[in-house]
Amino acid sequence: MKHNGLFITFEGVEGCGKSTQVRLLADAIEAQGYTVLRTREPGGPPIAEKIRALLLDPANTEMLPETEALLYMASRAQHTGERILPALRRGQVVVCDRYYDSTLAYQGAARKLSERAIRAQITFATFGLVPAATILIDLPVEVGLGRIDPIRADRLEREDLAFHQRVRQGFLDVAKVEPQRYLVVDGQEKIEELHLRIKRHVYPLLQKMEL
Amino acid sequence: MKHNGLFITFEGVEGCGKSTQVRLLADAIEAQGYTVLRTREPGGPPIAEKIRALLLDPANTEMLPETEALLYMASRAQHTGERILPALRRGQVVVCDRYYDSTLAYQGAARKLSERAIRAQITFATFGLVPAATILIDLPVEVGLGRIDPIRADRLEREDLAFHQRVRQGFLDVAKVEPQRYLVVDGQEKIEELHLRIKRHVYPLLQKMEL
Repeated sequence: MKHNGLFITFEGVEGCGKSTQVRLLADAIEAQGYTVLRTREPGGPPIAEKIRALLLDPANTEMLPETEALLYMASRAQHTGERILPALRRGQVVVCDRYYDSTLAYQGAARKLSERAIRAQITFATFGLVPAATILIDLPVEVGLGRIDPIRADRLEREDLAFHQRVRQGFLDVAKVEPQRYLVVDGQEKIEELHLRIKRHVYPLLQKMEL
Repeated sequence: MKHNGLFITFEGVEGCGKSTQVRLLADAIEAQGYTVLRTREPGGPPIAEKIRALLLDPANTEMLPETEALLYMASRAQHTGERILPALRRGQVVVCDRYYDSTLAYQGAARKLSERAIRAQITFATFGLVPAATILIDLPVEVGLGRIDPIRADRLEREDLAFHQRVRQGFLDVAKVEPQRYLVVDGQEKIEELHLRIKRHVYPLLQKMEL
């Protein structure tokens, strides 16, 4: 999938501090004069947001793992094709809170669906797009879940501790397979230190963009 | 996918008369003393109906072919896992208006998505379930579309004639690959004649069930 932009994704367990780091990084890149699209999965354009609402509604307790995986893929296809790819083709920087590695961790590692089937669906739903860099903010799941208000927890946040532990391990396993794409950082570090570490990883990629 | 039931699906272009034949066949089988689940795709249990609403809403004009295919798959996974398979495992007869062959015809043949990718998704979304018999009611698309009220047409019914012609050919191609599963009938025959032809195909399968 050819484009002139830079695609950066953030991954990690619930409450790991992704959204803070997405904001800090996007602000910093914008301050350098780049146009940045900040976005998140599931979500994006209106159709993808409608699918997001189905996915996160705590009322949908009957949802099967296969349905869940396919809804994430549907939302991702719309988000990628309608929003992310056009921005990258315009030469913009896209910073996305969660992308397909979340499906490998949540629906693959944690729900135990076939990794092979999920990887085939990912290729289809992303039109073959791969992030230039993926930042995994790793954190013990107890720490992350402790940061979430249980009253406002969505359908996935309500899963048990063992589920979230499989998610964490799933992310670490994916990161091990693709070390060149992944930066794994410790979510218990101070916010500003983490931000510096992430910038040091991403800025060389920004400079390559200009060549 | 093991079960003691009988799974029969109906396929065909818009306005081919499927729903009439589904009703006549289900009534006839019920009159023989069997328990029949009548259902349709997209749709079924509440989550699948919510996905159906997204798929058919004429407001969703931005929907990409990949998103559409994955939403059909998501709806199918929920419908199959929550409703069809449990009925078949109870030894019931399930008569379903559209199943995965519709995705091969609409999203594969007509929208020109990869047949290989779609077939892999079908295996995932159906848990490997294959209908014992599929009735294709074939019809020139002009005749079928002439039976539909254009004011009430859904998002797919509003596609142009060439689209619906690719759908028709897509169904005929799938039927050719699996002649043992498929009965192809002429949708311009009289309703009662069609019904007799369908019964003659399905009744031997009912008798095998009892062994």
